[in-house]
Amino acid sequence: MSANPVRNGAQALCDGLIGQGVTVCFANPGTSEMHFVGALDSRPQMRCVLGLAEGVVTGAADGYARMADRPAVTLLHLGPGLANGLSNLHNARRAGSPVINVVGDHAVDHLALDPPLASDIDSLARPMSDWVHRCVPGEDLQDAAAEAWLAATRHSGVATMILPADLAWSPATDGLRAPLATPSLAPVETAALRRAAAALQAPGRCLLLLGGHALRRAPARIAASIAARTGADILAETFNSRIERGGDAAPIAKLPYPIRLSLETLARYDRIVLIGADAPVAFFAYPDKPAILTPDGCEIVTLATRRQDVVRALEALADAVGTAVPPAFAAAETALPPGNAALTADIVSTIVATALPEGAIVVDESVTSGRAFFPVSQHGPAHDYLQLTGGAIGIGLPLATGAAIAAPGRRVIGLQADGSAMYSLQALWTQAREGLDVTTVIYANRRYAILQQEMINVGLPDYGPAAARMFEIDNPGLDWVALARGHGVEAARAETAAQFADLLRASLTRRGPFVIEAVI
Amino acid sequence: MSANPVRNGAQALCDGLIGQGVTVCFANPGTSEMHFVGALDSRPQMRCVLGLAEGVVTGAADGYARMADRPAVTLLHLGPGLANGLSNLHNARRAGSPVINVVGDHAVDHLALDPPLASDIDSLARPMSDWVHRCVPGEDLQDAAAEAWLAATRHSGVATMILPADLAWSPATDGLRAPLATPSLAPVETAALRRAAAALQAPGRCLLLLGGHALRRAPARIAASIAARTGADILAETFNSRIERGGDAAPIAKLPYPIRLSLETLARYDRIVLIGADAPVAFFAYPDKPAILTPDGCEIVTLATRRQDVVRALEALADAVGTAVPPAFAAAETALPPGNAALTADIVSTIVATALPEGAIVVDESVTSGRAFFPVSQHGPAHDYLQLTGGAIGIGLPLATGAAIAAPGRRVIGLQADGSAMYSLQALWTQAREGLDVTTVIYANRRYAILQQEMINVGLPDYGPAAARMFEIDNPGLDWVALARGHGVEAARAETAAQFADLLRASLTRRGPFVIEAVI
Repeated sequence: MSANPVRNGAQALCDGLIGQGVTVCFANPGTSEMHFVGALDSRPQMRCVLGLAEGVVTGAADGYARMADRPAVTLLHLGPGLANGLSNLHNARRAGSPVINVVGDHAVDHLALDPPLASDIDSLARPMSDWVHRCVPGEDLQDAAAEAWLAATRHSGVATMILPADLAWSPATDGLRAPLATPSLAPVETAALRRAAAALQAPGRCLLLLGGHALRRAPARIAASIAARTGADILAETFNSRIERGGDAAPIAKLPYPIRLSLETLARYDRIVLIGADAPVAFFAYPDKPAILTPDGCEIVTLATRRQDVVRALEALADAVGTAVPPAFAAAETALPPGNAALTADIVSTIVATALPEGAIVVDESVTSGRAFFPVSQHGPAHDYLQLTGGAIGIGLPLATGAAIAAPGRRVIGLQADGSAMYSLQALWTQAREGLDVTTVIYANRRYAILQQEMINVGLPDYGPAAARMFEIDNPGLDWVALARGHGVEAARAETAAQFADLLRASLTRRGPFVIEAVI
Repeated sequence: MSANPVRNGAQALCDGLIGQGVTVCFANPGTSEMHFVGALDSRPQMRCVLGLAEGVVTGAADGYARMADRPAVTLLHLGPGLANGLSNLHNARRAGSPVINVVGDHAVDHLALDPPLASDIDSLARPMSDWVHRCVPGEDLQDAAAEAWLAATRHSGVATMILPADLAWSPATDGLRAPLATPSLAPVETAALRRAAAALQAPGRCLLLLGGHALRRAPARIAASIAARTGADILAETFNSRIERGGDAAPIAKLPYPIRLSLETLARYDRIVLIGADAPVAFFAYPDKPAILTPDGCEIVTLATRRQDVVRALEALADAVGTAVPPAFAAAETALPPGNAALTADIVSTIVATALPEGAIVVDESVTSGRAFFPVSQHGPAHDYLQLTGGAIGIGLPLATGAAIAAPGRRVIGLQADGSAMYSLQALWTQAREGLDVTTVIYANRRYAILQQEMINVGLPDYGPAAARMFEIDNPGLDWVALARGHGVEAARAETAAQFADLLRASLTRRGPFVIEAVI
C-alpha cells in the first residue's frame, strides 16, 4: 500500500488504535481481514502476534490487558473466527479486562448473497461484549477505532467492532485527530461511603470482600490497615483478574470455591463490605444447597463496584474509620518433601511457591490441583497472580502468552491443569515464535478432577463406568512433552520432587518458553 | 440414579433421543451437565464419545450425520462451551447435517444471580442453529428431545436445546410415548419441473449444478443420464457435504474455488439448473471482481433445494426429458513419480488417490494443497468424499472422527492442511481413545497458503514482511509426529514419494488412527 497516498479504511482504523496507544494486535486473520494485515507493513508501531486458534488470540488479549492496564486489539475472521474466541472473551469480560475486537465481515453487498461464511456476527458478539459496533459505509474508521478504545476503557470490558471488508479496502478520509482522553473512573458515592463506614463500626463481624483493582498492592494495603483498625476480616473474591502479592503486599486469602467451604467461611459474618467485588453467589446451583453464599440477615454494602474508583474509595474509607498497622504475619511453614518423593499436586505447588523469582507473573488455571500454591506464596517475593475469572476453562496458556507480551523481562509461570490446557494448547506455538519467557507447569492428573467432585456435589456420588469415562483422560494419556515439542517448545517430564525442582529452577533462568509435565 | 425409580429430566431427555434413534452423544460436559452424564450409566444404548475441546464435539457430530444420515447429539457446557463449538456447527448447518445440541445452563433461579459462567446462550445459539429451544420448568423433556430431533431432521440442520440444570435433576413424568415419524421431504413443484425441463431443451449451453443429496450415487447417475440425453454439463458445487464417488458413480467435477477459475467455468452457460445446490456466488467479495459468478443474462432455474426431495425431482426430470447412457470415461492418466522424488502436494494427492481402498471415506480439508486428489480418484474404487462446507477451517480432524464412528469397518482418510488442522488437533485424542480407523495425511507446507493467494486476489500482491509473518507458520515448524504422539496417535514423517506411499499403505491395513506428516 506504500504506493497509495490515500489511506484505506483498514489503515485509518489502525491509525485510530495506534493514536489511543493500542500497539499490540493478537490475530488469526482470514480473507476478509487482508487489508488490516496489509496495513501492518506501513504501521510498525502495531506489533501483530499470530495465534493458531482464536481462543489463543482472545485469551492473550485478556492477559495483556491485565498486565498492561490497557487494551490490545484482536483481529478475527467473521462469525466462526469470533465464535472460536468467545469463551476467552467471556473470561475477559468477567475479569474486567479492556479488549478491542476487530471482526472482519463480508463486504456489505456480498452479505446479502448469503455466501457460505456468512452468519449473524452481531448476535454472536453481544453476549460476550460490553459494546458492539458494526461499521457502516461513509463512517470515519479512525474515529470508530477511537470510540472502540473508549468503550473498552470506560467499561473495563470487551468492545467489538464488525468491519465489512469493503470498508477496509475503500479510501478513507485523511485524519490527524487528537486522541481521546482516558475516561475517569466513577467516584464513590457519599452515601455508599457512609454505609460502609457504619458497617465497619457496628458491633458483630464484618468482612471486607475485595475484587478488581482493590487487589493491587496499594489499595489492598489500605484495606488491610482499615481492617486492622476496625477488627474486620479481609478476603479476595474466589476468582480474580490480578492480585499483586508477596513482598510488602497485604496477605489476603481467597473465598474458597467448593460450596461447602465458601458457605462455612461466610457463615460467621454479620456484614460484608464489597470493594470492587460482587455479592458472593455460588458458582453453580446444586440441589439442596443455597445459591446465595451469605447467611440470612447478613447485610451487604457496596462501597465501590469494579468499575468505580476503588483506590479513592478506600482512601476515603480510611479517612472515615481510621487505620492501624496490620499485625506482622509469620511466614507459613513450608515443609519441602525429600527429593525422591513422588510428586503430588501439593508438592508441585509448594516447590513453585518457594522457587518464585522476584517479579514473577503467576497464571493459575490449575483448577483442582494448585490450591497449595496460594497460601505458601503469600510471604514470598513480590509477584502478580492471575486467575481464570469466568469459568470458561482453557484460558491459562493464552493468558500467560499475553501477560508475557505485556511484561517483557518478567518470568511468567503457568500453573496449568491438563484438562483445561487442552482447550488452547496452540498458545504454546505463539510462545515459541515470540520467544516468550513462560514456564508452564502441567499438573498431569489425567482426569477432569473437578467434575469427579461435582458429581458428588450435584448428588450423584455413586456414578458408574459410563459416566466415569467422561472424566478420565488417561486412555491414552496425553504426553505433554511431545505436545509441547510439537509446538516448538522445549519440555521435560518430572516424576519426583527433585526432578521437578531442578527443571523448574533451570527453566526460570533460561530465555523462551518451557513446559514441565508434572506427573501427579 | 439406579436406586431412584423416578426418572429425572436428564434421563427423560435421553429417553426421548434414544426413542428417535439418536444413539451417539459427542460430549464435553461440565457441572451443569452432570445429570445428563449420570443418565448414561442406565442408558447403555447411548454411546458417549468425549472430545477434549468443543470444536471436536460439534465437528464429529457433523461427520457422523453425513455418514449415518441421522443426527447425533452433542453435550456442551453453557455459553462458552457452545461458543467453542459454534464454528463447526456453522459448517454443519451449511452442510445440511442434522445435529442436536444439548447445552446445559444454570438452574433457572441461579441465572438471575448472574454467576460468573452466565451468558446469553440463546443469542449465541441462534446464528448457527435452525431451531433453538430453551426448556422451561414443567415441560416434558422426553417430548422436547423428540421435537429437537424432528427439527434437526426436518431442517437438515442444527437444533439446539438449552437445558437448565434444575430441569435435568428434577423428577420427570414417566413416559412411554410412540416415537415421532421421520418427516417426508418436500416434493418438487410441477412448475419448477417444467422450467427445468424447458431449460434443458432450449438451445444454448446448460449446466446441471448438483449439491446436497443429489451427489449421492443413484441421483447423480440419473443426473448424468439426463445430461447425456440433453447435452447439458454437470458440476458439483465447490463445497459439498458428501459425494459418493468412484466405482460406478457418475464422474462429476466441482466448480473451482479460485474466483478467476469459477468465473471462467460458468461464463459459457446460458442456463443453470440447480438441484440441491445454491445459485453460485463468490465465497468472498474482492475489489473489482463480481460477486455473482454466473454471467449476465444466465437463466437460473431451481429444480429442487437441498431440503427438497432431490431424488424424486431427478426421477421426474428424467421422465420429462429422457435419458441416455453417459459416455464411458477413460481413466485419467496417473503418472506416479519415482520413489525418491521429493514430496509435493500433487504427488501426495496422487498417491492417496491411487492407493484408495474400496469403501474409503475421504475427508478433505486440504484447502490449497489437495486439489490433485479429486480428478485422479474419480475412476478409482467406490468411496465417499466429505468437504469443509461453511469455510470455518478446523473441521477436518473432527469430521473424520465422527465419520469413523458412523461407519465402523471403513477406512477414513483425512487430507488435511496443517494450518487448519491446528484449530482442532485435539480430535486426534478421541480417535486414539475410540480406536478409530483414521489415516490423517498432513500436508505440511507450514503456511496459510490460501491467505498468500488471497492477498493477491484482494489487490495486495506486494505485501511486506509484517504481513507475510501472518501467513507463515514455519518458525517454529510444527512437528506433527510429536503432536500426534502427544495425543496418543502413532505417526511418522514422509519426505519422499516412496516413504509416503509405504506409510500410507501400511496405515490402511492397521487398526486405529495414524498420522502421516507429508513434508511438502
